[in-house]
Amino acid sequence: MSRVVRVAAAQMGPIARAEGRAEVVDRLIAQLHKAHSFGADLVIYPEMALTTFFPRWVFDDPNEADAFCEAAMPNPAIQPLFDEAARLQVGFSLGYAELTQEEGRKRRFNASILVDGTGAIVGKYRKVHIPGLAHADPDGCASNFEKRYFENGNLGFPVFRAFGGVLGMCICNDRRWPEAWRVMGLQGAELVMCGYNTGATRMVMEGNRRVMEPAHLATEHNLLVMRAAAYQNCCWVVGVAKAGAEEGSNFLGDTCIIAPTGDVVAKAVGLGDEVIVADCDLSAGDYNRRSIFNFEAHRQLQHYGLITAQRGVKVPV
Amino acid sequence: MSRVVRVAAAQMGPIARAEGRAEVVDRLIAQLHKAHSFGADLVIYPEMALTTFFPRWVFDDPNEADAFCEAAMPNPAIQPLFDEAARLQVGFSLGYAELTQEEGRKRRFNASILVDGTGAIVGKYRKVHIPGLAHADPDGCASNFEKRYFENGNLGFPVFRAFGGVLGMCICNDRRWPEAWRVMGLQGAELVMCGYNTGATRMVMEGNRRVMEPAHLATEHNLLVMRAAAYQNCCWVVGVAKAGAEEGSNFLGDTCIIAPTGDVVAKAVGLGDEVIVADCDLSAGDYNRRSIFNFEAHRQLQHYGLITAQRGVKVPV
Repeated sequence: MSRVVRVAAAQMGPIARAEGRAEVVDRLIAQLHKAHSFGADLVIYPEMALTTFFPRWVFDDPNEADAFCEAAMPNPAIQPLFDEAARLQVGFSLGYAELTQEEGRKRRFNASILVDGTGAIVGKYRKVHIPGLAHADPDGCASNFEKRYFENGNLGFPVFRAFGGVLGMCICNDRRWPEAWRVMGLQGAELVMCGYNTGATRMVMEGNRRVMEPAHLATEHNLLVMRAAAYQNCCWVVGVAKAGAEEGSNFLGDTCIIAPTGDVVAKAVGLGDEVIVADCDLSAGDYNRRSIFNFEAHRQLQHYGLITAQRGVKVPV
Repeated sequence: MSRVVRVAAAQMGPIARAEGRAEVVDRLIAQLHKAHSFGADLVIYPEMALTTFFPRWVFDDPNEADAFCEAAMPNPAIQPLFDEAARLQVGFSLGYAELTQEEGRKRRFNASILVDGTGAIVGKYRKVHIPGLAHADPDGCASNFEKRYFENGNLGFPVFRAFGGVLGMCICNDRRWPEAWRVMGLQGAELVMCGYNTGATRMVMEGNRRVMEPAHLATEHNLLVMRAAAYQNCCWVVGVAKAGAEEGSNFLGDTCIIAPTGDVVAKAVGLGDEVIVADCDLSAGDYNRRSIFNFEAHRQLQHYGLITAQRGVKVPV
């Protein structure tokens, strides 16, 4: 049985604050059509693909975030995407801000879902590594305040049997944490989808001075962490950007499909709505899984204890 | 107080099986002199820098390995290196095969030491991730049989206060495992030294066929894992090769010094004895350590359990 999945990564250009769900869903459907024209089985959209990336702002009242959230998925505004994807028998993964009532209170998560070719939701993930700050940055460097609006995901890093393989999801900042990838790798993930909204530049402190980080680093770091994760966990990685100039933010593009070798096999060139595609053989990581990265043969748990025992840095000497 | 350490990476060309310790130590001292001419504070030599890389062979009697091991460190053959380094007040790190009597039996480890500018051994590490096979490979792909000769290191991933900072060591295959780097990162490692003997080509199975892996991958993977580790743990990484055509093996060069940004700031160009140098500001990772990679603020231990609970892959669904 062939285990090749034709995967499309649907980079999105900017979404303005004034843009309504209906307009955005029209764009998502246009991307779906382009992916279908490539013969794709699965289309991957970015993190928070339905609205502007609101956590760039520090709202006095964090509940202002609710307007950017979905209280149900699907919901009437999003249903046309589900319907059209099911009609074309194309699956998709979609990132969105989630508003939910759980444990007797209102909660917000930065979420993504995996939808199969019949339109059924077969997987759900909530971003574990919520980045940024909960309050304005005294240094004036921060451009991300997700900690003000979102709880850390409470579903762990689940994997899902779908599209003939074992698939996982992570979101944006998660990709910088090797722990996230390893937990999915230990569950046999063969393809991991990762949407992101990531600044193309970054301000940092150099001593007491606020300076711009060298310009190549944002692109380098984005590729570096996803390529390393693909190689070290023998899986495909699909990184999908919300890109371009959005409400004063300049976001990276660099949407890419990465093989288990760490090779980038497809890559977006622009900063707008753009679809790239590749055939992903889900067995491509198998030889490394039984040789150089045979976890059972090579991992040495007895020396990894700090990873789960200690959260922050402690210099022992 | 300045926290800049001038670090030299002393790549070694091949060492023939017939080459004795005295000849090799002469080469190490020549490298030391070149490093000293650059004003280096610390010289880093590769893995198993005193002999040929014997685990390419499958000896019928594994005890044949003893001839390539050091039963004491220093010992009379190596003492001239210690003496000359102390005279020049240059520290060094040296990889070697270790033969020891512990727990009432003979044991072999793939080890490295850190020596300060007075010639005192201030750190010792034993390779945790022993790669390869213990027996000949039925597929005919393997070129590394370290598991036949070495036990997995039993010292964990210690860090050492030396050269004004917090330093760690890992060896060759360790660099492919993000767990190794994270355990050092959690202890505040600011510079990690990693010697290696790594094939420049690799045979793999493609279905039932034995084929060569695409030629760019060995170089790519070497840089990829060390650069990602440097970025994700906010530390300097110094990767030092035994390079070139040695007893039928073709080893990678690509000795490099990597900043906490993931940037390669110095790199060897050839496959012989070669010294590269860079000024490593041990504070260079500090801003990331308190922002994007503030472990205390961002790590989510409650979702990392599998990393220390489960050795091999188990697909849960």
